[in-house]
Amino acid sequence: MELYFLGTGAGLPSTRRNVTSIALRLSRGTSRVWLFDCGEGTQQQMLTAPFGPAKVDRIFITHLHGDHIFGLPGMLGSRSFQAGSGPLSILGPLGLRTFLKTAVETGGSHILYPWEVTEISDAVRDVVIDGDYRVSYRRLRHGIPSYGYRVEERPFPGALRKDLLEAAGLPPGPLYKKIKSGHDVTLPDGRTLVAADYVDPPEPGRIIAILGDTRPCDEAVELARDADIIVHEATYTAADADLAARHHHSTAAEAAAVARAAGARKLVLTHVSSRYDHDGEEQLLADAKRIFPNTILAHDHLSVLVERVMSKRC
Amino acid sequence: MELYFLGTGAGLPSTRRNVTSIALRLSRGTSRVWLFDCGEGTQQQMLTAPFGPAKVDRIFITHLHGDHIFGLPGMLGSRSFQAGSGPLSILGPLGLRTFLKTAVETGGSHILYPWEVTEISDAVRDVVIDGDYRVSYRRLRHGIPSYGYRVEERPFPGALRKDLLEAAGLPPGPLYKKIKSGHDVTLPDGRTLVAADYVDPPEPGRIIAILGDTRPCDEAVELARDADIIVHEATYTAADADLAARHHHSTAAEAAAVARAAGARKLVLTHVSSRYDHDGEEQLLADAKRIFPNTILAHDHLSVLVERVMSKRC
Ligand SMILES: [Zn+2]
Ligand SMILES: [Zn+2]
Repeated sequence: MELYFLGTGAGLPSTRRNVTSIALRLSRGTSRVWLFDCGEGTQQQMLTAPFGPAKVDRIFITHLHGDHIFGLPGMLGSRSFQAGSGPLSILGPLGLRTFLKTAVETGGSHILYPWEVTEISDAVRDVVIDGDYRVSYRRLRHGIPSYGYRVEERPFPGALRKDLLEAAGLPPGPLYKKIKSGHDVTLPDGRTLVAADYVDPPEPGRIIAILGDTRPCDEAVELARDADIIVHEATYTAADADLAARHHHSTAAEAAAVARAAGARKLVLTHVSSRYDHDGEEQLLADAKRIFPNTILAHDHLSVLVERVMSKRC
Repeated sequence: MELYFLGTGAGLPSTRRNVTSIALRLSRGTSRVWLFDCGEGTQQQMLTAPFGPAKVDRIFITHLHGDHIFGLPGMLGSRSFQAGSGPLSILGPLGLRTFLKTAVETGGSHILYPWEVTEISDAVRDVVIDGDYRVSYRRLRHGIPSYGYRVEERPFPGALRKDLLEAAGLPPGPLYKKIKSGHDVTLPDGRTLVAADYVDPPEPGRIIAILGDTRPCDEAVELARDADIIVHEATYTAADADLAARHHHSTAAEAAAVARAAGARKLVLTHVSSRYDHDGEEQLLADAKRIFPNTILAHDHLSVLVERVMSKRC
């Protein structure tokens, strides 16, 4: 799995950072991509990314501020021109469907693939289960409804201990598959081999939390609990904490405190205000690292591999 | 006056050409900018242009295809963050208002300046007169209503012939102003100086025609009559004339024939399909030059000065 940052700025595009969009490239035999937010110019950013719109089959929207959604109509339209664009599911706050339908109808886009919009609200809470992945969400604390998403990967099956099976006198054959899938096996000599004794315990899947614009909050901590990676907004430096509070955003230090409270492994800061120059961004990163050392600051076109940690929870 | 091309591609953005937007920088004592179309990413293109969104006070939309309008909601929102953003007038086809209102409401943009949308249709034809400029429009021939705009500059007043006035015995003084503004003057000695004899004839203002997506048509010729510059789409090369006809677009050669029929001075080709590589674009330009030699091919960030031709129509 890989996180690929298409846009990492806050509110307005700048020459250094486009407005928000984050791609999650799935693995385990698929090259599918999920998008989290789709600010204006996301399809342009994708022109120099290692995947195109056709690979995207799910889009999750954190909130309806323009810098997070105004790239959607163009993305939907362009996807029609791409060979291999299959069905597309879009999930986001109440109001998303009207916006998209109006834009598509006005723009005369002929969407040549099935697409659906699922609207979420506080009253409706559900979980998306798709292949080896499960996505849950919670409302965060922003000026308007803003959601955070937690992507959990199905555990990896444990390895078959062929060494132990051979030592027990069972040569390679069809029974190996049966044991690997968890079934005990009785041998001709009457002995029963308990599957659990010959299969390593499953390795946990990866957990990624991608949060929308928010004040630091318990919901963010919950979503990021034990996550391999938490992506949190860091619109301001600690020195501008008053601005962060006033505009319902977070400082980098506040994001780091959330990551620490959640017991996450790694924090990626994004959604950085264009008010900061290079020195300001260094300060912003330093603010966070003081509290949560394993922090990096995203930039447009940054790729972050989500590594499997083999014995993470053993 | 200057034309500045923010986006020159057709349908889809590419790494070389963003989708359509053309800026007209006015002159004669103003730094105002008018935008013709505003595809997705126009505000990003403007980040490296010599003017920002605050300078734009009129936007003309040729037609509602997404590649010509999906940058509008972001542009409106970003303009609110810019110091000096005054009122904004937007003119475009029926349906534009609903699209913009829905987008602005969904995106929660607080538009901090007055803005208005005027919708045009075949039933309603009017002319915009603003300062030294007059804009008229006509419907072209595309799959959906698509308009072309003709911008006419007010004539430049002729120069006062001080040499002739002094030879007639009138020394510099307040009467000079009277004569310059066209009033005859009777001197103390009884002689009457006819103003027209002492003021050069007015120099014609400049004419620019900026056309939306279209098949070649008489309406385009009319809009570009005697224009200093005609900006015409050239989606395809002559070899792809069948595609141009099928998709309601023009070839470069067809655009050139329109410029020639209109008696225009210069043709700028834009809205070029991303199917053409560098060689293809050279061919496209050559197709046009064979018919209308004073042709150039626009690229993103091309600036074209609209020069005054002093004795053009004398
Ligand atoms: Zn935001
Ligand atoms: Zn077009």
